[in-house]
Amino acid sequence: MTRTAVVVVDMLNPYDHDDADLLQRSVREVVRPLAGLVRQAWEREDVELIFVNDNHGDFSATREQLQHRALNGRFPQLVAPVPPPLDCAFMAKVRHSAFYGTPLEYLLRSHGVDVVVLAGQVTEQCVLYSALDAYVREFSVRVARDCVAHIHADLAEAALRLMERNIRAELLHAAHCLNH
Amino acid sequence: MTRTAVVVVDMLNPYDHDDADLLQRSVREVVRPLAGLVRQAWEREDVELIFVNDNHGDFSATREQLQHRALNGRFPQLVAPVPPPLDCAFMAKVRHSAFYGTPLEYLLRSHGVDVVVLAGQVTEQCVLYSALDAYVREFSVRVARDCVAHIHADLAEAALRLMERNIRAELLHAAHCLNH
Amino acid sequence: MTRTAVVVVDMLNPYDHDDADLLQRSVREVVRPLAGLVRQAWEREDVELIFVNDNHGDFSATREQLQHRALNGRFPQLVAPVPPPLDCAFMAKVRHSAFYGTPLEYLLRSHGVDVVVLAGQVTEQCVLYSALDAYVREFSVRVARDCVAHIHADLAEAALRLMERNIRAELLHAAHCLNH
Amino acid sequence: MTRTAVVVVDMLNPYDHDDADLLQRSVREVVRPLAGLVRQAWEREDVELIFVNDNHGDFSATREQLQHRALNGRFPQLVAPVPPPLDCAFMAKVRHSAFYGTPLEYLLRSHGVDVVVLAGQVTEQCVLYSALDAYVREFSVRVARDCVAHIHADLAEAALRLMERNIRAELLHAAHCLNH
Repeated sequence: MTRTAVVVVDMLNPYDHDDADLLQRSVREVVRPLAGLVRQAWEREDVELIFVNDNHGDFSATREQLQHRALNGRFPQLVAPVPPPLDCAFMAKVRHSAFYGTPLEYLLRSHGVDVVVLAGQVTEQCVLYSALDAYVREFSVRVARDCVAHIHADLAEAALRLMERNIRAELLHAAHCLNH
Repeated sequence: MTRTAVVVVDMLNPYDHDDADLLQRSVREVVRPLAGLVRQAWEREDVELIFVNDNHGDFSATREQLQHRALNGRFPQLVAPVPPPLDCAFMAKVRHSAFYGTPLEYLLRSHGVDVVVLAGQVTEQCVLYSALDAYVREFSVRVARDCVAHIHADLAEAALRLMERNIRAELLHAAHCLNH
Repeated sequence: MTRTAVVVVDMLNPYDHDDADLLQRSVREVVRPLAGLVRQAWEREDVELIFVNDNHGDFSATREQLQHRALNGRFPQLVAPVPPPLDCAFMAKVRHSAFYGTPLEYLLRSHGVDVVVLAGQVTEQCVLYSALDAYVREFSVRVARDCVAHIHADLAEAALRLMERNIRAELLHAAHCLNH
Repeated sequence: MTRTAVVVVDMLNPYDHDDADLLQRSVREVVRPLAGLVRQAWEREDVELIFVNDNHGDFSATREQLQHRALNGRFPQLVAPVPPPLDCAFMAKVRHSAFYGTPLEYLLRSHGVDVVVLAGQVTEQCVLYSALDAYVREFSVRVARDCVAHIHADLAEAALRLMERNIRAELLHAAHCLNH
């Protein structure tokens, strides 16, 4: 049986970085469908839900602190609707790819996951890099097209095309990401 | 300038695993010198202090939960004296080596660390594997001899000999680990 | 002192894959400047020259075999001008990134390399993925713009823009890649 | 179906390093059973045979050069009986573990290997480190007890005990390593 994981990238964001204003416009559009995808993944027995979030250079930050800082950042309304469920797998990352310096590959393999559904931010950065790393490791990649947010629309479009063409990623609406 | 990191392994332990009774006898001996080493490392500007702890298979566990479970485990008196300071680097690991599936290598390199001082448990398991991984990555290794605890004395002795002979680890008392 | 490595990707190619016809048109344009860059790198004491080449799924292939197959492939005139010098570092890779499953990171670090200059093929695939992996590992990235070949011009353009914008890659002509 | 790989470590050795005299005494004992294990693995359809060999710091060395240097080293009679078959998977490594900086994990996974049989040299160094890395990655480990050579008998004994106790490695005679 094919097993699927939904990997939600970097949604705990205080939006205090460069380009945060550009980014938040796009995040507004994805929060609602992403919240739906997270809920659906969480309810499905055959789907792993995994939150991976940058520690923003603070190696002492706990999960609660990352969440607290995001909820007390500039756009709490973009954070509050997509909280990582308490019992959900959560891992801090330190660079762009969700695979680098994290136990993500180990978790996916030990749970027999074949298909990785990517959601979150930023399409043309962490989502792209994570997709490439998943592909290199022979996971099938799906991108939840209405659940990924960008800073620059043109770069995001280019990143999506690169994923579709060169790593055979399926670009799907959230409603179809968990169909086998 | 040589920079040093003290890596404290798996001290947040509820001691509910096989061999925990054997292990706790040895941990009793090391808690006090280890607490001293941690304090010293924490006060030194040129020393990184990093706690790396198994998540015991729970990928949703937060740092607080790992600490809470250990403090509510069978031997809180072995946990309470060596708490990770709040602002201290902390990372969960999922297998034996502190390098596998963690950002430890990235953290060490980005802080310019050359020398890794290992402390904690278990000498002949996670300490050994972490030491080998450090050596393979060209870090110099020191083992704080009075700060590492074992399950089996004979295997620990063998592991220390292997580290000393084959990866040129220095086996030093805590008092000397931070001397350059 | 900043040290530089020139990493030549996948130039030993028999061109028997899908899209090889599209690719060879672009390779024609880059062979001459690439040969110049390789020569210059090879002569410079402070520059590492490293060839990384896919094994095309054959884990028994030797360097000579990879070279032989490429020279006996469909476009030997695109292979012959850029031979890896006999004493030059050479590593087989098995997936798209030059870092995945290879000792490239180890070699770069042990030689004190800070700056990675990427050249070869394919701009929007292996060059892009290697650039991202270099960036994640904190190497500075330069792309020798006249020494990278593509399959699809539009995807290559997008890949170059992504590298320039998001990983701060410098896109330089070969003549300037080795200036510090 | 369980699939098995036999990983032969560092048998292309010119024996010009420290401790080579101690090592060669032990290698003498293992050459014959190892040649048998290699032959058997090579003939079995359900067994992967993989040679992994140190490049001894020469990143330009080809497989032929490594073999040539070993055959022209101090103990060709320890090299000649265990040549890597021409069509056999071969990978250079740069540090002690067969997994570090190599595509070994990728090869094992893409061939569906569950069980790794380790043979070669040195029991208390590369064999030990490779065994630990295999275990951390969730492969089952067997050590072909009559096919691994040591420098120091006491350290080798300790290493074998550590593998047996802590990573659940099976220590088996070559004749039984490929039984499922």
